[in-house]
Formats: sequence, structure tokens, C-alpha cells
Amino acid sequence: MTNFEFCTPTKIIFGRGVLSRLGEEASLWGKKALFLYGKGSLKRSGLYDQIKKQLSDAGIEVVEHGGVEPNPLLEHAEAGAEICRRDGVDFILAAGGGSVIDESKAIACGAMNDEPLWDYFSCKAPVKAALPVMAIQTQPATSSDNNPVSVMTNPASGEKFGLRSPFLAPKVSFLDPEITFTIPLAYTSYACFDMVSHLTEGYFNTTATFSPVQDGFTEGLVKAVMASFERVRQDPEDYDGRASLLWAGALNWNGLVNAGLDGAVIPCHMLEHPMSALYNVAHGAGLSIVTPAWLKFKKDDIAPRIIRFGRNILGMEDLNEGDGISASCDRVIEKFETWIRSIGCPLTFTEAGISNPDIDALADQAVKLAGIWNIKNYSKDKIKKVYYSCI
Amino acid sequence: MTNFEFCTPTKIIFGRGVLSRLGEEASLWGKKALFLYGKGSLKRSGLYDQIKKQLSDAGIEVVEHGGVEPNPLLEHAEAGAEICRRDGVDFILAAGGGSVIDESKAIACGAMNDEPLWDYFSCKAPVKAALPVMAIQTQPATSSDNNPVSVMTNPASGEKFGLRSPFLAPKVSFLDPEITFTIPLAYTSYACFDMVSHLTEGYFNTTATFSPVQDGFTEGLVKAVMASFERVRQDPEDYDGRASLLWAGALNWNGLVNAGLDGAVIPCHMLEHPMSALYNVAHGAGLSIVTPAWLKFKKDDIAPRIIRFGRNILGMEDLNEGDGISASCDRVIEKFETWIRSIGCPLTFTEAGISNPDIDALADQAVKLAGIWNIKNYSKDKIKKVYYSCI
Repeated sequence: MTNFEFCTPTKIIFGRGVLSRLGEEASLWGKKALFLYGKGSLKRSGLYDQIKKQLSDAGIEVVEHGGVEPNPLLEHAEAGAEICRRDGVDFILAAGGGSVIDESKAIACGAMNDEPLWDYFSCKAPVKAALPVMAIQTQPATSSDNNPVSVMTNPASGEKFGLRSPFLAPKVSFLDPEITFTIPLAYTSYACFDMVSHLTEGYFNTTATFSPVQDGFTEGLVKAVMASFERVRQDPEDYDGRASLLWAGALNWNGLVNAGLDGAVIPCHMLEHPMSALYNVAHGAGLSIVTPAWLKFKKDDIAPRIIRFGRNILGMEDLNEGDGISASCDRVIEKFETWIRSIGCPLTFTEAGISNPDIDALADQAVKLAGIWNIKNYSKDKIKKVYYSCI
Repeated sequence: MTNFEFCTPTKIIFGRGVLSRLGEEASLWGKKALFLYGKGSLKRSGLYDQIKKQLSDAGIEVVEHGGVEPNPLLEHAEAGAEICRRDGVDFILAAGGGSVIDESKAIACGAMNDEPLWDYFSCKAPVKAALPVMAIQTQPATSSDNNPVSVMTNPASGEKFGLRSPFLAPKVSFLDPEITFTIPLAYTSYACFDMVSHLTEGYFNTTATFSPVQDGFTEGLVKAVMASFERVRQDPEDYDGRASLLWAGALNWNGLVNAGLDGAVIPCHMLEHPMSALYNVAHGAGLSIVTPAWLKFKKDDIAPRIIRFGRNILGMEDLNEGDGISASCDRVIEKFETWIRSIGCPLTFTEAGISNPDIDALADQAVKLAGIWNIKNYSKDKIKKVYYSCI
């Protein structure tokens, strides 16, 4: 096991009706909030009015900044940071999915640090402070509600980068499963694959020969996501199914699963970020395209992990008996693809509506990310090979 | 899933040689420390000198308070709190297992609150503040290093009670697996059973029909503890085995496993606390005695959970085919007992050296705990029945 630090300081308030405590909790963080949200669903669902009333009843002044994009954009965050400085905002209240919460962290950084905001994302400057962030998570997601990470897109440079700083973890997050009842099935399935990808990147890549705590968490959470999706598919208002997805969403990328796991790198994310940066495809859909392709590419190096995945997660008890390890891996990947298709996620660029991807431009971005994230042994040629197999 | 709050604010610093950062981290919390430790092993191992040097090099003044008992005693904690008040201590540094860390939280409470210390443990007064606690965990334990709980024994009243307050979570904890290499096998096995018990209390008692996140965590962690113990039994200096136990020790009772789990109560702890309070038996050994007895007592109510435990944790794939659910439960409990015996934990009072237990006195204590912990449907007669089956 490698050395690590682990800290999840966010107070998570989880369950039915927990937003009734919003005003009380918000009062602890100041008198003026930047209220950040997306492109309309918050108003349609009635959540917008509920939040405004809670803040107003608590005597908190609100400055609004709506319109966050699904892959949040640098310029919108810069504008938010400018509002915070201009209006003397005390804290940010983000209500939305991972995109809104990610942008709230970027704004929190921009409001309290002096260099151009993209400098922090491209590791040119260290974060020295941030405004407090409170979050209302409306989508089962990848721990944005309790991790110190923000992912943003800079259309001017065609880059999608992540920023990690302990200053960025939300102070309080509200997770109410009932809020997620209305999420369309397609978005639910993208979110599920996003979680599965976060969980399995380290699992597939680890060099550890004994990592039962991390393996147990991963296997338990992936199976939980799969079982919960089935319940939600049958009944979008299945409380325990939605609740399990929301809780799995909070736990899959908060540092827990990969803590101490030797060699835990994230090559599928390296391959996906350029896709959503250049083609605005949903992150989970991008991941469902590259992951099986990447598994086929890496099959010979990580065969024991693929077999373990098949046996312990996909329930394939009859693996590796007679037909050889490579053929067994093929069967696992095939079964995984069947599951991906069954939940409605794409497996190719074409299925995601990208008819003529610019493989060269994608690969250039991926190579850059490999450098930033310290992922070794991925030349541009190898990366292109994986992308070509996704067409 | 029931509503819950979850927050683990402790910064965990985990791995080989992490104590080299002690001075730097301690400096953030003040200039004068109460250094709390147990009965001698810290000095024998050389850790005592290492800690003193780190603090001295960082310019931190140290007041010592050694001699913490395995089941820490109220009077010793009261004395520690008095030292903190008298000497103007800024923070407490606890170096030891769960007992030392538990007592450090009691001292942290006593130093900053005015009522008699036992009033906080018997829920007569609310904790309003606490000194900061830093911890060096020397034993794989039950999350004392990152939870807000302290368990103390009051010999005058014959009570062993727990206190929970968000003020009590350690600020920083150091977990170095190499420090645990010298723990004797008997203590390692007690610690392992302690973890298994913490993990399975909610698992066996839950009324939830769908709890895949919590079930997955529990099953993963229990299997991790079992597999890691095997490695450590073969080689006490197996780094990954010791590291997995230490990490499982940090995660099994920090609120994660039972978060949102309907009906998660802790009847085996209700039965055990009186045993260690009255007979000073190791907590894990007490739990290994009462848990199988309690399973036999509750068998008819929780049969599906026992079967699940057998199948998903003990690997009994052939359960429940033909021989009926009650007989299947018996087989699971029997296999569990075989494992308990194989790791060297006791299954009866006699095996723990308690030849003539005062069942009436034990049951009186347990009834009191049932009230405090809100565990329903355990009359004194039922409790005595379980104790009698442990003789």
C-alpha cells in the first residue's frame, strides 16, 4: 500500500426533506451568497423557489448566477468570481449536479486568488484561499459534493482540466434522494457509468497484489450502482434505489476507493476529457465509449484484474476454465459492453453523434493530460489506436 | 435508507515513516502538548523517544501523562484534564491504541467543560467545547483515530459508557503500519474481531430490504480483515497485511458503514460493555464470546441476513439448498465460530478466564445500555438467556 492522506471534511446532510435545514446551515457562513445554478431545471422543479425562500427567511442576501453549462466553461466562472469580488459575497451556494458544483469551486478559487483563473487549472499557480462553498447535489455524481476537485473547460484553448486543492471541498452538502426522482433515465445512466469508471480506473490499473480494502469497496460500490440502476429503471421514484445511487455518487470519487492503492492512475479519464472538451459529449457517455476500447487495448497487461472484475462484479463464476486467459478477458469485456448498452450508454463515437472525430486533436489533448496527471507509457500513437477503435 | 449526517474531518496521514511529519503538524495546534500514552510498550518500542524528539525539535513543550489502562478509567482522565487546566495545555497528543485515543477525547472534553466528567458520558450534560486532539494510532482499531466517540469505564459505578460529540474527532491522525509489526498475535486477533463486530452489528440488525452500498462496504471490509489476518499470522511483518488491517481499522466505525442503514443497532456491544467493565476482558475477546451466542438467540428474526453473511462473507455457496433456513443458519454460525476459534479468540466466559460470571450484574448493566442506546426488545430475562449460553 502506498502512503496517502485522506480527509473528507464536508458535512454531508443526507435524506428526505433535508433542505429544510438550508437556512440554518447557511447562516453559519455569512450574510451574502452567490447562488449558482444551471440552465433551467432548478426553476422547473420548484427547487429554485424553495432555496430562495430558505435563504430569505434566514436573512441572507442573494446574488444570482445561473446558466452553468453541463461541461462548465471558464468564462462563466470568471464572471462569477468577478461578481463575488464586486459584491462582497461571503459564500457560494451551488445547486445542481457535478457541473454546477465544479464551477462553484472554480469561482470560490477565482474570488480569492489574484492570478488568471486558468493558471490554477493548468498548475501554473497554487491556490492560497477560497470562498466557502455549500452544495445542494441534484444528481448522483462523482463526489463533487464532498471532494476538493473542480473540472472546467476552456474553449479558447480546447482544454478540460481538473484542479485539486484542500480549500475547495464544500463545507456542507445537502443530498436529498427525492430531488433526483425526476432525472431522466439517460442522464441517470450516464451518471452510473461515470461512477463505475471512477471506481474501476484504480481497480484495473493497480500494481498491488494485495489490496482487499480497496477491492472490497470498489466491488461493493459497482455492484450497488448496477443494482440501484435496475430499481430506478423499473420505477424512477424508487427511494432506496435513488438513495443508493446518490450515496454511491458521494463516495466513489472522494479519495476513499483509491486511498493507498498502488499505481492507481486514470487513463480512461485522460482519454475522455478531450472528448467532452472538443465535442461536448456527456462525461459519462464519453467514458462508456473509451472504457471497453481501453480494456481491449490493455488486456494483456491487466488480465488478472479483468478476470477479477468479471468474477466478483459481473458474477461470471465460470471464467478461466479451459478457454484461456485472453479469451476469458474477451468474454468479460463483452459482458461489460452488454451491460453498458443495456443501460443506454453509447459504445462508439457514432452512437454519441460524433460522426467524424478529429483523432489527432483528441490525442494531442490526451498526451497533455498524461503529462499533467503523470500517466506513463501512453504515446500519441497508442492513444490514437484506442480512439480509432471507438469509431 | 434513513436520513443521516456524515462527516469525517480528521486528516489521516497514512503510511511508512509518516511520523517524520509530526512536529510540523503539531506546530499548527499550539506550543504546549499533553502527551498521553499507555503502560510501557511505547517506551520499549522506541516510539516514545521518537515522538519526544519530534515535539522538542518543533519547539513544543510537553507535559506527560502515561499509564492509560486497556479499558481506560475515569479517574485517570480526570487527572489528565486537571493537568491541562493547570498547565494551560494547547492540545493533546495521544500515542497508543483505541484506549489511549479514547481517553484523550475524554480529557479533551474534561479540560474545556465544567461539569463532572462522568456527567458527559452519562448524557447528563452536553459537550460545548474540547481541546484539539492529535493521535498516533499504534493498533488497528475501531476508528478511534477518526471518529468523535470516546468509551470510558467508571469503576466506582461499574459502568462503561460511550460519549459522542463532533468536538471530539481528532484533528490529525498518523497511521504507520510498520509501528504495528510488533503487536502480538493475540491482540491482533482481538482487534480483528472487534472490527468484524463493528461491521456486522448493523449488517445483522438492519431492517432494510435494499442497502447495497452499506452491504458492499461491510462485506468488503470483513473479508479484508479476514484475509489480512491470515497474512499477518504467517508473517507479522507483512506490510500490506498490517496496512490493510490498519486502514480497515480506521474505516469500520467512523460512521461510514452504518450511514443511512435502517435499524442499525449494536446489541452485541450492549452485551459486551458490561463484560469488560466488570471483568476487564479485552473488548474484542468479549465480543467474540457474545456474538455467536447472540446470533443463535436472534436466528429466527434475522435468518436472511445470517444466510447472506454465510454466502457473501464466509463463501458458503451451497447454503439453503434442501436443508432448510434454520439449519442453514446453524451451519453459518458454526463456520463463524470455527473462524473465531482459528484466530485465537474465546467463545465462552471460561475460555476468557471468567469462571463464575455474575450474570445478574452483567444484565443490569446491559439493560441500562439498551435504554441509553435506544435498543428495543431486550428485557433483562432475554439478556440473561444470552449470557447463560456463553458460560
